[in-house]
Amino acid sequence: MTTKRPTILIVNDDGISAPGILNLVEAMRPLGEIVVVAPDSPQSGMGHAITIAEPLRLERVHLFGEGVVSYQASGTPADCVKLAVSSVMHKRPDLVVSGINHGSNASINVIYSGTMSAAVEAAVEGIPAIGFSLLDYSLEADFNAAAHFAQFIAKQILKDGLPEGVLLNVNIPKLPLEEIKGIKICRQAKAKYEEKYDERIDPYQRKYYWLVGKFLSNDLGEDTDIFALNNGYVSIVPTQFDLTAHHAMSHLNNRDWNVENK
Amino acid sequence: MTTKRPTILIVNDDGISAPGILNLVEAMRPLGEIVVVAPDSPQSGMGHAITIAEPLRLERVHLFGEGVVSYQASGTPADCVKLAVSSVMHKRPDLVVSGINHGSNASINVIYSGTMSAAVEAAVEGIPAIGFSLLDYSLEADFNAAAHFAQFIAKQILKDGLPEGVLLNVNIPKLPLEEIKGIKICRQAKAKYEEKYDERIDPYQRKYYWLVGKFLSNDLGEDTDIFALNNGYVSIVPTQFDLTAHHAMSHLNNRDWNVENK
Repeated sequence: MTTKRPTILIVNDDGISAPGILNLVEAMRPLGEIVVVAPDSPQSGMGHAITIAEPLRLERVHLFGEGVVSYQASGTPADCVKLAVSSVMHKRPDLVVSGINHGSNASINVIYSGTMSAAVEAAVEGIPAIGFSLLDYSLEADFNAAAHFAQFIAKQILKDGLPEGVLLNVNIPKLPLEEIKGIKICRQAKAKYEEKYDERIDPYQRKYYWLVGKFLSNDLGEDTDIFALNNGYVSIVPTQFDLTAHHAMSHLNNRDWNVENK
Repeated sequence: MTTKRPTILIVNDDGISAPGILNLVEAMRPLGEIVVVAPDSPQSGMGHAITIAEPLRLERVHLFGEGVVSYQASGTPADCVKLAVSSVMHKRPDLVVSGINHGSNASINVIYSGTMSAAVEAAVEGIPAIGFSLLDYSLEADFNAAAHFAQFIAKQILKDGLPEGVLLNVNIPKLPLEEIKGIKICRQAKAKYEEKYDERIDPYQRKYYWLVGKFLSNDLGEDTDIFALNNGYVSIVPTQFDLTAHHAMSHLNNRDWNVENK
C-alpha cells in the first residue's frame, strides 16, 4: 500500500540563503515532498510586487540536502510562486508555506510583507497557503519554537484545508518553545507606522532620505494579533484578498453619485 | 471673508511624466491647493512596496505650471505618500488622489497595483484617499471622461469624507464621456491571472522567463466592478486594508490548535 505524500512549495522574502527558510524546510521535510523556489536576494518590504517589465531568471541550487528540489529566482516572492507553479512544478502544490520571516508581519505589517504576498499569490491560485514570521529580526534568531509551530500548523492545514479565499498569517513570539502558551485565532490589530525620514547629506552635498518607521497601535482589543503575541501566544490571522469594504457599501450607496456628463 | 481651500496630494505609479497624472492634476486644480509627489520612473506592478534598504531621493520639478508644487522621488508610490507628508507638506493633506492609472485596477488587479498602494498608504494614515484607473493601457489614451469623473468623485469626497479605514478604488471604462451610463458602488470581482511564462533563450544561451498573464474571472455577480465596467459604468469599490477574513474566524476557532510544546 502506498500513500501519496503531499507536495509542499516553500517560498520566502529574505532570500534563499536566509536561516528562516532553512528552518522551514527542515520543519516541512517530514510532511511531504518539498520544492523550494525563493528569491536570490532579500526582498523585504516588496509588498505584493510582481515583475512585468523585466524577464526573470531561474537557477537550480543545492542548498537543502537530499530530496529537496530547490531554485533561486531573480524576482519577488509573488513571482516565485507563479514561476514555481508554471515552470518548475508544472502543477499546483498541495500547500504553499512562506517564511520563516525574520521579523513580525502582524497587524498592518501584512500589507507591506513580501512573505505574506507569496502566500496571498498562492491563495489567489486556490492553493492553501500560510505565511510564518518570527518576531526577531536577528540573523542569529532562534527558530526552534517557530519551526515547531510551523510544522504543527502546516500538518493541520494539510489535513483540514482552508476555506476558499482564506490564507493564514502566522506570527510567533520571540520566546523559548516551552514558554509559548499556545495558539490564538486573531484579527489584524489596527496600527500604522509613524511617518518619519532621516534627512541626510551625501558625500556630494545632495540630500537623501531614509525611512525610520515607528510602529504605533492604539488598538486595545484583546482579540488582536498584537495582544496575543504580547501575551506569549502564537497568532493566526485568517487573511483574505477580497479588499472590498463590504460594511461600507450601503453607506456609500446612499450618497449622491449622479454626475452630469451629457 | 476667506474660505480655506483644501490641500490635495497627487501621486501615481506610472511616473511623474505619464499623461494620466497630468490629466489628474488638471482635474483637481479647481478643487484645492495641489501638491504632486510622484515616482521618477514607472512603478507598475510594485504592489505595496516600501523602500527600507535604500535611501530615497526627492527632487523639485516644474512640470505642471503655475501654482502646483511638484517633486519626483526615487521610490515607490507608497514611498511618495510617506515622503510627501513627512518631508514636503509637513502636514496631512485633506485628500490623496492616485493615478490616473494607465490600465485597469479592477478586481484582483487591486492587490498588485502601485496606484492603489499609494491610496492605501494614505488611508492607513487616516487621510481620505482615492485611486483612479482608466481601462486603457495606451500612452495616447483619451483621459477626458476619466478626468471628468475623477473631479466629480473627488469633490464629493472632499465634501462628505469617507468612513474610517475605507478608501475608494475607481475604474473608468474606455468610453467617450457621453456614453458612460453613470457610477456604480461595487464589490471586487473574484478573478485571477492564469499563470504562464514565456520561456526564452538569451543571446548567451541562458534561459529567461517573461510573465504573460491572462485575466480569468468566472464571477457572474452583477454587483461586481467587472460587471459595471463591462456595462458602461464607472465602478467604485470601497476598499479596506484590514485583511482579516472575519467570516472565517469562528470556523477556525472550532478546530484543534492544541500543540504539545512542554
